[in-house]
Amino acid sequence: MGRGARTRERIVTAATELFAERGYHGTGIAELLQVARVSRGSFYHHFDDKEAVLVEISLVPVENMCTISSQIAADGRPATERIRSLAVALMEDIAAHQSQWRVFFREFELLTADRRATVLAARDRFESYWAQVLDAGYRSGEFREVSKLRLKGILGMFNFSVHWMDPGGSVSPQEIGEDFVELILAGIRAEEAHQERTF
Amino acid sequence: MGRGARTRERIVTAATELFAERGYHGTGIAELLQVARVSRGSFYHHFDDKEAVLVEISLVPVENMCTISSQIAADGRPATERIRSLAVALMEDIAAHQSQWRVFFREFELLTADRRATVLAARDRFESYWAQVLDAGYRSGEFREVSKLRLKGILGMFNFSVHWMDPGGSVSPQEIGEDFVELILAGIRAEEAHQERTF
Repeated sequence: MGRGARTRERIVTAATELFAERGYHGTGIAELLQVARVSRGSFYHHFDDKEAVLVEISLVPVENMCTISSQIAADGRPATERIRSLAVALMEDIAAHQSQWRVFFREFELLTADRRATVLAARDRFESYWAQVLDAGYRSGEFREVSKLRLKGILGMFNFSVHWMDPGGSVSPQEIGEDFVELILAGIRAEEAHQERTF
Repeated sequence: MGRGARTRERIVTAATELFAERGYHGTGIAELLQVARVSRGSFYHHFDDKEAVLVEISLVPVENMCTISSQIAADGRPATERIRSLAVALMEDIAAHQSQWRVFFREFELLTADRRATVLAARDRFESYWAQVLDAGYRSGEFREVSKLRLKGILGMFNFSVHWMDPGGSVSPQEIGEDFVELILAGIRAEEAHQERTF
């Protein structure tokens, strides 16, 4: 990594921690320069303004998940296995980059119109890979049809984990992903056998 | 409502809109006073500081949901009906008070320790009513056992709607609540009959 790239990375890392802790608006440029140990001139060489750093923090995890998810969506395995892989990849990424995801979900609504549109387009692309696999599962007879609304609900289940996930906790991100997929696949309604047993 | 209560309400309403739009840290006291049309003296008569307003914005919707949910949890109907009512009540409240909920989820992590603990205690109480109904459903044979982790996932499904819910949209909050409960109850795995049909 060249010196420029290292400086850029230092700015993004410092901004992620500061935005996560104090909020985007609660973090001043001066503070960011100090924590990142870069000069004002060097900062403006890499970014137009503070908001451009927020765009990078918001875009990078979503675009990264797009790359991973597009590969999973196209890998030809049964949809049930692909949906499990999508879920595990998402939970592992949230656990590995929890501050970025937290900043993304918390702050992207504060972005100005154009920049918000760029981030939302990436998010829509990400969702489309899930839609693709759910649709493949419907066509193969593995799943019922899943509406757009339900896809929002399913993704919310995973995304909301930014607020409670403990990457050092006793359940691994992989196990959480697999467990949630099982919940989505089978639901919580007791099987008839179980219902009969209780009477 | 007395004059004091009206002033207090004006402050909370203005703060909710400002915090939702610009973030808690992005909103100055001076700006808040101006939008709420209250004097500095009057503000400090009602609140210790700006953070106390954030606590009120965060606590009120959660405590309100606690009241509604505790009644539903104790109303003696089958757990399946109670879980449906819990979900519909939550979605209707998120739709009716979307800005408060958005501020709550986005900003409560920025609260200082003591105040954060108060808000988290209310949130835990809210979750306990869902746990109570899921447990009742397990004991009655309606549901499988639902782990704490899965409850987090189920609530995330609803809570994450603060980011995408359109209260004026074509699907009502009630329909969303009912549809998500059906997803949680039955899952998306195709029934055997459907799988056979596809061959």
